[in-house]
Amino acid sequence: MSPHTPPLSRRLDGLQSSAIRDLLKLTARPDIVSLAGGLPDEQLMPREAIARAAESALADPSRLQYTESAGWGPLREVLASRESVRLGRPVPLEEIFVTHGSQQALSLLGEVLLDPGALVVVEDPAYVGALQVFRAAGARIVAIPLDADGMRVDALTELLERGERPALVHTVSNFHNPRGVTLSPQRRRELAALAERYGFWVVEDDPYGELWFDRPAPQAVASYSPNVIRLSSASKILAPTLRVGWMIAPNEVCRGVELLKQGADLCGSALTQQIAADLLADEPWLGAHLDKVRGIYGERATALVSAVRARFGDRVVSTDAAGGMFVWLDFTDGTDTVELLPRAIDHGVAYVPGSAFAVSQPYRGSMRMCFTTSDAAVLTDAVDRLGRAVDAAG
Amino acid sequence: MSPHTPPLSRRLDGLQSSAIRDLLKLTARPDIVSLAGGLPDEQLMPREAIARAAESALADPSRLQYTESAGWGPLREVLASRESVRLGRPVPLEEIFVTHGSQQALSLLGEVLLDPGALVVVEDPAYVGALQVFRAAGARIVAIPLDADGMRVDALTELLERGERPALVHTVSNFHNPRGVTLSPQRRRELAALAERYGFWVVEDDPYGELWFDRPAPQAVASYSPNVIRLSSASKILAPTLRVGWMIAPNEVCRGVELLKQGADLCGSALTQQIAADLLADEPWLGAHLDKVRGIYGERATALVSAVRARFGDRVVSTDAAGGMFVWLDFTDGTDTVELLPRAIDHGVAYVPGSAFAVSQPYRGSMRMCFTTSDAAVLTDAVDRLGRAVDAAG
Repeated sequence: MSPHTPPLSRRLDGLQSSAIRDLLKLTARPDIVSLAGGLPDEQLMPREAIARAAESALADPSRLQYTESAGWGPLREVLASRESVRLGRPVPLEEIFVTHGSQQALSLLGEVLLDPGALVVVEDPAYVGALQVFRAAGARIVAIPLDADGMRVDALTELLERGERPALVHTVSNFHNPRGVTLSPQRRRELAALAERYGFWVVEDDPYGELWFDRPAPQAVASYSPNVIRLSSASKILAPTLRVGWMIAPNEVCRGVELLKQGADLCGSALTQQIAADLLADEPWLGAHLDKVRGIYGERATALVSAVRARFGDRVVSTDAAGGMFVWLDFTDGTDTVELLPRAIDHGVAYVPGSAFAVSQPYRGSMRMCFTTSDAAVLTDAVDRLGRAVDAAG
Repeated sequence: MSPHTPPLSRRLDGLQSSAIRDLLKLTARPDIVSLAGGLPDEQLMPREAIARAAESALADPSRLQYTESAGWGPLREVLASRESVRLGRPVPLEEIFVTHGSQQALSLLGEVLLDPGALVVVEDPAYVGALQVFRAAGARIVAIPLDADGMRVDALTELLERGERPALVHTVSNFHNPRGVTLSPQRRRELAALAERYGFWVVEDDPYGELWFDRPAPQAVASYSPNVIRLSSASKILAPTLRVGWMIAPNEVCRGVELLKQGADLCGSALTQQIAADLLADEPWLGAHLDKVRGIYGERATALVSAVRARFGDRVVSTDAAGGMFVWLDFTDGTDTVELLPRAIDHGVAYVPGSAFAVSQPYRGSMRMCFTTSDAAVLTDAVDRLGRAVDAAG
């Protein structure tokens, strides 16, 4: 900028662009099979059903107008009815808040729930969009490791017993991004009990719960305590273009989010909110659509995990990929996935190094692979390319 | 909340719901003619053109996916081309940023440009959505009065000469909300020169500029200096449901906003952004559409101002309503518009008291009336009801 240009805020110091986004730009080359993305498969999105719903929405002039900050009424009703079933209690309308994707719910909750310096507990490795929000809120961040049963609630208990008092604990409860694992039912009960005993909020961030392959995800953490705020989204089950996420939270939290939403962007789109409402309300259609997506993602996940195990044997430990969009892989042979990446790209395959999601641990031997947008043959070929890159390193 | 519920952030203390929004809830009764709203007329929104563009957008699966944080590429190209004409210089793509309505641009700029305690100059009366953002950013706010030629730049000059150093000056340059006035060409040049001389940002917030009645709005303030960040929106010229606003700003500002947008909500909707792109790119269609809206809004504005002058004579001073959506009215006879409101509602008419927009001055004798959503006969009747309410007070 020229010497006469006014300065920018100090808030920008130290803020960096998402490493994953920057990487995605590099791996858009057509000769590269990218497992580095984190996108659902646009070919599986219900284009025709969305087009029909859009046409129907646009028949009503009021769908072109501003809508309520908390979300278009009929969408909130559909969500209240679905979440009542999920949570096993009648969820009143004032506890439903529609956001611009669940990222906006996280962002507004960061302002509503956190004073600067508040302690926030995240998982390690973590969803980077949550880290970004909590850092922007000026929180002090402590990470709890994950294992095959999700967040190590025993480690959280130790932290609390040492006297730490978090304002908020964030968990991706189902088919974790990036770690692939699901919080066990036993730990869900324990986490909710800790939240009530020590008086903290749990944010149960659940965009992937409906994408199970063999069996449904366990009962929601939010079903165990009103201290658990539940987030979900239409992005992974319908389409990101709708920009529809939602939050189930106590009325007081929803009203705080509403005040901030007015300043943030006034309201969402009545058009895309009616599309989401129509599709989510049509249970037979939605069931068939989700069965199709689950079936195809499940096949892809199985192909990827099988290829990884066949190619690397006991040189890696990988998640089982029981749902969601990601497989997490730990090399046990000393492979450094940050050093490997340029060579992998030379061999025509990309992934995200574990370090991109790291909070306390380095995860230099780990990587995240996304299986949603490639078929079984491409995934198998990608693992073969990765194998040759690893061999070339040895 | 129960005693075991965790606390909310102190940021919420003192934040209040918008007075206008709360008032709107009260005046939704069918027997009340409400001039209190601030909505464009949904009957004039181009429903069929939007439906055609939606159908075309949804023919491409990639329009269902996440899109770039800075906005869908082809929309940014259309905006760059339009803004190049408006600003009289080639505007490069990296200076165009698409937001979720221009309210989101204001909100993200509040974070990108302002450190806590920074001085922000606003107009008095002010656009309340801007006040909300600047207060949330922890700014110190000073208000400059408006007259028939817009912001009193002489008063700003005095402020600067007294040694005050604003980080940012906010102006609604065309057909001000709520004040109805337009910044004169001479003052635009002066404001831009002051921004360069004293090194502050100007945010030229321009959602109404295309809604002129007799002659186009003056040359954009942003055409006089790169220190001026220009905001505009599709909400008032196409439809709010698109949630498409845009910002023209130096590359460094756009990149700062991009980092924050990723944390705020990742990205906008490729579907509604293609709809906006298609409609804004079709110049013959857009020209005819805008001519129609201008014509109808112009008739309504004229009807309202004529009725006010006929009914109240020299007991009021009203703006001329040369464009936009609002008429501002100052009673010169001591009428208190806050005290009048309940009686006006009894007589079947609602408006927003000037005090709802007040920063330094009380504006107890002023009101804002919105003429967009009622026809001439209804507006004339509304003024008659208002007259009876005022008479009943006398």
